[in-house]
Amino acid sequence: MPLPFVCHSEVDVLIIGAGPAGLMCANALANARVNVRIVDQKAVKLTTGEGDGITPRTTEVLQSYGLAERLLRESCQLHLASFYNPSATGGIELTDRIASVTAPSARYPFEAALHQGAIQDIFIDSMTPLGVEVQRSTIPTSIELSKDENELVDPTSYPVRVVLQRLDKSEDEPQEEIVHAKFVVGCDGAHSWVRKQVDITMDGEQSDSIWGVVDMVTPDTDFPDVRNKALIHSNHGSVIFVPREQDRIRIYIQLKDKDVINPMTGRVDKEKMGPEQILETAQKSIVPYKLTRKSEFIWWTIYSVGQRVASKYSINNRVFIAGDACHTHSPKAGQGMNASINDSHNLAWKIALVIRGWADMPLLSTYESERRQYALDLIAFDKMWSTLCCDKPLTEQNGDGVSPDHFLKTFQTDFTSGIGVHYQPSVVVNDRNQELASGLVLGKRVPPYKFMRAADAWPFELQDLLPSDFLFKLLVFTEKSFLNRYAMHGTSRFDIITISKGRKQTFNIFLLPALLRSHWSKVFIDDTDPTGRFGGEGYSYYGVGAEGAVVAVRPDGYVGAIAPLDHVEDLDAYFASFMKIPA
Amino acid sequence: MPLPFVCHSEVDVLIIGAGPAGLMCANALANARVNVRIVDQKAVKLTTGEGDGITPRTTEVLQSYGLAERLLRESCQLHLASFYNPSATGGIELTDRIASVTAPSARYPFEAALHQGAIQDIFIDSMTPLGVEVQRSTIPTSIELSKDENELVDPTSYPVRVVLQRLDKSEDEPQEEIVHAKFVVGCDGAHSWVRKQVDITMDGEQSDSIWGVVDMVTPDTDFPDVRNKALIHSNHGSVIFVPREQDRIRIYIQLKDKDVINPMTGRVDKEKMGPEQILETAQKSIVPYKLTRKSEFIWWTIYSVGQRVASKYSINNRVFIAGDACHTHSPKAGQGMNASINDSHNLAWKIALVIRGWADMPLLSTYESERRQYALDLIAFDKMWSTLCCDKPLTEQNGDGVSPDHFLKTFQTDFTSGIGVHYQPSVVVNDRNQELASGLVLGKRVPPYKFMRAADAWPFELQDLLPSDFLFKLLVFTEKSFLNRYAMHGTSRFDIITISKGRKQTFNIFLLPALLRSHWSKVFIDDTDPTGRFGGEGYSYYGVGAEGAVVAVRPDGYVGAIAPLDHVEDLDAYFASFMKIPA
Repeated sequence: MPLPFVCHSEVDVLIIGAGPAGLMCANALANARVNVRIVDQKAVKLTTGEGDGITPRTTEVLQSYGLAERLLRESCQLHLASFYNPSATGGIELTDRIASVTAPSARYPFEAALHQGAIQDIFIDSMTPLGVEVQRSTIPTSIELSKDENELVDPTSYPVRVVLQRLDKSEDEPQEEIVHAKFVVGCDGAHSWVRKQVDITMDGEQSDSIWGVVDMVTPDTDFPDVRNKALIHSNHGSVIFVPREQDRIRIYIQLKDKDVINPMTGRVDKEKMGPEQILETAQKSIVPYKLTRKSEFIWWTIYSVGQRVASKYSINNRVFIAGDACHTHSPKAGQGMNASINDSHNLAWKIALVIRGWADMPLLSTYESERRQYALDLIAFDKMWSTLCCDKPLTEQNGDGVSPDHFLKTFQTDFTSGIGVHYQPSVVVNDRNQELASGLVLGKRVPPYKFMRAADAWPFELQDLLPSDFLFKLLVFTEKSFLNRYAMHGTSRFDIITISKGRKQTFNIFLLPALLRSHWSKVFIDDTDPTGRFGGEGYSYYGVGAEGAVVAVRPDGYVGAIAPLDHVEDLDAYFASFMKIPA
Repeated sequence: MPLPFVCHSEVDVLIIGAGPAGLMCANALANARVNVRIVDQKAVKLTTGEGDGITPRTTEVLQSYGLAERLLRESCQLHLASFYNPSATGGIELTDRIASVTAPSARYPFEAALHQGAIQDIFIDSMTPLGVEVQRSTIPTSIELSKDENELVDPTSYPVRVVLQRLDKSEDEPQEEIVHAKFVVGCDGAHSWVRKQVDITMDGEQSDSIWGVVDMVTPDTDFPDVRNKALIHSNHGSVIFVPREQDRIRIYIQLKDKDVINPMTGRVDKEKMGPEQILETAQKSIVPYKLTRKSEFIWWTIYSVGQRVASKYSINNRVFIAGDACHTHSPKAGQGMNASINDSHNLAWKIALVIRGWADMPLLSTYESERRQYALDLIAFDKMWSTLCCDKPLTEQNGDGVSPDHFLKTFQTDFTSGIGVHYQPSVVVNDRNQELASGLVLGKRVPPYKFMRAADAWPFELQDLLPSDFLFKLLVFTEKSFLNRYAMHGTSRFDIITISKGRKQTFNIFLLPALLRSHWSKVFIDDTDPTGRFGGEGYSYYGVGAEGAVVAVRPDGYVGAIAPLDHVEDLDAYFASFMKIPA
């Protein structure tokens, strides 16, 4: 046997696992021109099944990377949720239909459904032209973090050593590679190898409810809500319908232990249950409506899920975990893929700024503080929601059952849209001057509103002026046509967007100081559009008064700090807490 | 010298000239899977200059072919028009800024500016995957139309014989080809060779005003309207600014005969005037504002235009002319490229239906009746508008000058948006039952409105349900949940879209007869969207009452006929007047 070949390499960021968390992270870092690699155990990419729901906030996030257009072209939009309950005459009947997204500030007021493989392709196709591709059939076999304190705090060092092994090489080709990385991100799923190697524990418990899922082409049916998200409480168990792209639907059904648990092993036995049985159960539960399959099943599975959160999200801010590696929960709240994508959205810009030498290492600690709290909130919501989904419906026989009203009220939370996420004060979320812009909540995402570009009255969505380009944005709300004093160091690290209360009939951008109009396209007015259909209430919507304000928006679109126009030093202090002073 | 090689070929449609009219026609016919060829004299495609303005109606038309998304991504939007006039202190001053598009039903309430080469690329890139490419360096050298009456009326015959010559072949390659075509479309510009060969005359006269045009990167300036469409009457002549894609602008200036006419020849002499002189004239006219060029000129020209319309648009409905071959006028009304694109939009579906054997030959006569009347109206508007642009402004010294108010009122016509186009009654525009749907005007385009898809409350723009796919659409407005009688021959040639007044909370599409729900995606309701932001007034907007209506929309998006729900025979009569009864 020949000696194994081993080669050494260096990389800024090594990502392990090419699911939604890993691909989102890789694409974001590729956009930031960070030297990044991503590896995955699987030989081929995903084509069916798995996650499928994108929340309104995740669509906003994808838009900030220029990826929402494709998502919206390929996905199915869920606008209505319908609720069915047992009828007096047996079978089920429609209780209500409501908007599936009730967050009033949602820019995309619907869930977008698209299978996980297609979503992953959006990231893959975005990062390929930037020179980043998934290295497949590759597993890590060891990971070591330096114990040298000086090395750990030096952002230019490579303190993580990962051995990668190729599974698809013949014996006379190099099979092992030793990678020296500045940072490693473990996006390797619920059974994360990275997490186990670095001894991060999972807190929480296994749930005892078991569900079956099947994907199929919209069946022949007279069920009127086959293209809505339908939440059905029947006397034969709960069923959830989710419409999908390309005339497909997904059906979730609640299963009984005895139907799926092998009494010998105590584990789910996929031999005992198949897609036919899942469909049969759904058919029984939706009587008097009929459901007849038209073509082959596309995908199916059975699952029971634990609700757990990782005790830590990183080791020394050098080895991180993200996505399912950090949190597992049921798919019924529709959050799985979204939580993963938003973990990486939160982490990527922080790593990029540290690698660029713009920010200090402690910025990275806010990844855990912000995203772990979110995961804990998600688990709490998921427990409540899963229980309501699984419990028997309220009927005459079952006075303790779930009432339609209670179920509906729980559904109508801001949480499921992803828009409710609220990061608490930290080095990157200041807690001063909130009263100057009460509609731009510190720690929450900037809500959408349309302003007119001053030079040509072209309407622009403010969110589209806040792309995920790794720059902080300074929104300067000023009613005055001239500011006597405005200065800030290192403006090339900021994108300054001026929003004035001027009128389109008379406004002249050349009366603004040059700093507030680095280009004619950077000045906007809070006026109605030329046809008078929308706009003109932005100051009021964002709660900005006559005294104006300067608002610092983080690279991920969350409000970071607010300062009065006559006391911009407040921002200097904010940035000084995590940014380095340019040489 | 060797004998010339000659080959023979057959084609359904031969298009001569690959400008906007020719490419639009070729792409439309390619979409309809018609056997089409397009040839052009030029060896390379256009990259700068020429036409650049797309009206709101043309954007709607491009959207119906799936091409608006790219246009909107690449083009510059013109939302405001500003008007400058001489000030009391010398120089010019801002008189007013108004919406550049005032048509209230405009779906895209702006002009889109993009250079002609980029617009042509949109068509070229759309038809290439359909197997149609421009054959360049090719000229026709003769065209002959059969005189056999039987052949001329038989839509399956090939009565046109065109000899094509390749300019880029060496002497020992075939240089000539004889093409036998069912139809020939001459899209070969103002000096059309096709038009001259078939002896079609142009009616009208040469204008005596001369203009210079220059394209450049937005200059250094303090002129506040450099990114708006600015119409300037100064005491030094008229100037028009048009913003463009990629931070460019176009400047038009009025020239004096003596500056550009060679007294020996009486013709425009491009030696006497260049882009520097055009810019200098603009600079003089916009005092007190300054204008300093930042980079090279991109393109420039000088023109004087005749206002002329062809006496006929076809010979025997076999040889057609379209675009500039039919009409020449000034570019100042911004209609040139639009008129050409819409000529072909009108002609293509008619040719396609005849070639498919679905429609009779006389349908083709409506191309001339509809588009020639439009061209006459355009010329009349252009004469009035050009005069106002060229005339001296109203001042104390010049009491006969153009008043700002008069100028502005003339600008605010529906004509320039393209939305005012109104085809008169003919075999394809019926004149009955208008009162059943007063907002869907017979002979005008269907105005945009959003309806909710009944099965999932997904909001859809009605115009997007009317793609240019060469099918007639039947809009069935019905308040009743059940129609007892509905039958029509050959429904595969129609797309039936049902629009009910049902409520999203309770509507059940399965209560409709099967003909009105060929697929679940074909049924819509006139209700507000799930967030209550828009919709729900469609019946009222389209003037449809409680008795409902069936509206036949032509493949080009224009209203063709209206019938009562209880007298659908009216539609049978309409279709029988130009469609063949399927065997």
